[in-house]
Amino acid sequence: FTLASRPKGTPTEDNFELVTEELREPADGEFVVKNLYLSVDPYMRGRMNDARSYADPVNIGDVMVGGTVGRVVASRNPAYAEGDHVMGFFGWTEYVVTNGGGASMATKVDPNLAPISTTLGVLGMPGMTAYFGLLDVCDPKEGETVFVSGAAGAVGSCVGQIAKIRGCRVVGSAGSQTKVDYLVDELGFDAAFNYKEVDDYTGKLAELCPKRIDCYFDNVGGAMSDAVFMNLNFFSRVSICGQISMYNAERPEMGPRLVLGTLLVNQATARGFIVTNFLNKFPEGVRQLGQWVAEGKIKYRETIVDGFEKMPSAFLGLFKGENIGKQLVKVADE
Amino acid sequence: FTLASRPKGTPTEDNFELVTEELREPADGEFVVKNLYLSVDPYMRGRMNDARSYADPVNIGDVMVGGTVGRVVASRNPAYAEGDHVMGFFGWTEYVVTNGGGASMATKVDPNLAPISTTLGVLGMPGMTAYFGLLDVCDPKEGETVFVSGAAGAVGSCVGQIAKIRGCRVVGSAGSQTKVDYLVDELGFDAAFNYKEVDDYTGKLAELCPKRIDCYFDNVGGAMSDAVFMNLNFFSRVSICGQISMYNAERPEMGPRLVLGTLLVNQATARGFIVTNFLNKFPEGVRQLGQWVAEGKIKYRETIVDGFEKMPSAFLGLFKGENIGKQLVKVADE
Repeated sequence: FTLASRPKGTPTEDNFELVTEELREPADGEFVVKNLYLSVDPYMRGRMNDARSYADPVNIGDVMVGGTVGRVVASRNPAYAEGDHVMGFFGWTEYVVTNGGGASMATKVDPNLAPISTTLGVLGMPGMTAYFGLLDVCDPKEGETVFVSGAAGAVGSCVGQIAKIRGCRVVGSAGSQTKVDYLVDELGFDAAFNYKEVDDYTGKLAELCPKRIDCYFDNVGGAMSDAVFMNLNFFSRVSICGQISMYNAERPEMGPRLVLGTLLVNQATARGFIVTNFLNKFPEGVRQLGQWVAEGKIKYRETIVDGFEKMPSAFLGLFKGENIGKQLVKVADE
Repeated sequence: FTLASRPKGTPTEDNFELVTEELREPADGEFVVKNLYLSVDPYMRGRMNDARSYADPVNIGDVMVGGTVGRVVASRNPAYAEGDHVMGFFGWTEYVVTNGGGASMATKVDPNLAPISTTLGVLGMPGMTAYFGLLDVCDPKEGETVFVSGAAGAVGSCVGQIAKIRGCRVVGSAGSQTKVDYLVDELGFDAAFNYKEVDDYTGKLAELCPKRIDCYFDNVGGAMSDAVFMNLNFFSRVSICGQISMYNAERPEMGPRLVLGTLLVNQATARGFIVTNFLNKFPEGVRQLGQWVAEGKIKYRETIVDGFEKMPSAFLGLFKGENIGKQLVKVADE
């Protein structure tokens, strides 16, 4: 799937084009990966815009970016044997010919350690985002209150559980009662609410966070963030991971100018981060999250759509909140 | 002057009451200060509201808070002799009977080191605010671009000069051509502009900060901050010191919701701070600023209004931008 056109507002399937090409032979040092799972992530929306950001936009006609995990089906690279499993940023494609370097950031995956799909989720980029975005940016202390917006997603669900391990009161917002039940009943959140059924976010947060909010892990932005800022505690820390509620806005929506003033009176800090900034610490994150998953302290869920051709609709589904946990597209069986 | 009533929106002189009382005799351990200068500061506006903040509001009928510097005219405290000069938070009053402790935070002042008025300005709270708010929160590096809003005030003018000492490109905004000339011609700012004569702040900042803004020291908030956020550089730091443009708003004004999104794509940090948080490092700040002032590397200006009864109007003048540098009220001659 290539980027056919830049969306105005909410993307549609027409923004993507399914292109079929003959696969070229791997050159010396290259190998061929057959993707088994494609990762579906909110950040991809940003790459569709021709705007200044931490990463260059995808050019029109180029393959859409994205993490994938697959199997080597041919190789002229001694480091990758046929049958090896490989995770990389190979994009929205069924097969790729690659040398594994550069932006593809290929790494071999041991399928005996954990299901290979977790390299795109709890043990991959979303897990690292949760781990470092919470621990390095917010550094929550025992007894503090942590609020996570978009709490039932791949990142948010992991953030909340890490905060519970840290001994915090953890509260989250999500977009359905099913998700709220999942957060509280399965993941051990202290409280959660369905933002689609609450009018007064500020009052709801005051009720669920009576000692105010010490750490805010923001996946969503918009009116939810406004309400959180009204409930921040002194010396609180805000980790800005995503702003999905605004990714499809053609211009910034209007809201009360309260962010800077509330940071001031609370002596609080807000920090935007990109997970690749913690790249040199990923081994620590993978090891720790892997251990917590093995011990049952971190649970994860995947929402898997079958069929490569479903990739655009699975991506569009993110903005409708169709996923619980990590959204994946399964391209092929092993 | 006591707080007579809480303002709705912009304060008026009616919010203050001039109360005359017989001065009581100092008890053992107390002394009497005759104030010579009263400090006039934007933060006082916050104390007039009955709102949650880092400091309790002034109660109706209580003396308005504020820093002052004066002379001991009677003493039953061995640490303070008649004739000593004393700086403290004695409030909007001509005389005070105090033991110097608690919230009054009295400290003796050596009038031979620098004019005593500087203990309320460049060598006092505003100077410390500039010093730690810039160096600890933003930590500007040589060659970076620093933008200061409210640049001609007591804090802003000091911030810009410290940033110049650090080797930065320094740009500021202020509310008159006279202030702009002062910043560029006297203080060595690389550029400045009169925000009252510019419509497109975002474009103006792009022109004056072609390498974007690495450090933003915010005294003002509102539309100016929106424009700065549109010009932030990657890994930039925002030090939130004041939001004077919004202190008189009865509810937050509306603006584009862009703060969190721009922090995210720039991997930037915004931090609100209160100067008293750096209290244990004040000696370092006073020593360094004192040295820079003595060397002529930091210049300062004072706008002095004569007469205790002018205190309310001098305070209201802050919101009209009447001051260049530190606004003071002179209560009495030595």
